[in-house]
Amino acid sequence: MPLSRTPRCTCIKISDQPVNPRSLEKLEMIPASQSCPRVEIIATMKKNGEKRCLNPESKVIKNILKAISKERSKRSPRTQRKA
Amino acid sequence: MPLSRTPRCTCIKISDQPVNPRSLEKLEMIPASQSCPRVEIIATMKKNGEKRCLNPESKVIKNILKAISKERSKRSPRTQRKA
Repeated sequence: MPLSRTPRCTCIKISDQPVNPRSLEKLEMIPASQSCPRVEIIATMKKNGEKRCLNPESKVIKNILKAISKERSKRSPRTQRKA
Repeated sequence: MPLSRTPRCTCIKISDQPVNPRSLEKLEMIPASQSCPRVEIIATMKKNGEKRCLNPESKVIKNILKAISKERSKRSPRTQRKA
């Protein structure tokens, strides 16, 4: 079966619809790898656990990351540690 | 059982150890919620599937996000779509 080594990505179609950061249960980022040549971003929705693939190029992602980090700094205003 | 409604976070301890973006299988971001008052970042390692909680305040996260987005723009130099 020559097709058995075909790279497999998790996402089949990618949504460009805006996603409200508050309605997110979690956001998964999967780096590009041998099994999938592109970065994949999968949002799991709170309401129904629905998973949605988002376009990593889109503003949606930047807004979500910004919203998450804002929320973060509001809730835990710790000083930054050196790694 | 008065403790049954205690908020539950996924992370018990948070690692400040540097993580190589190339050794990541995926990165999960869980926004703060009623069940956990802080943002949680969980890295799954390629090698053994080990999950590690990372400090969202740390440089590690910024480096990983930068590395992921660099890799992204190298591999898919598409123009940005308006959401």
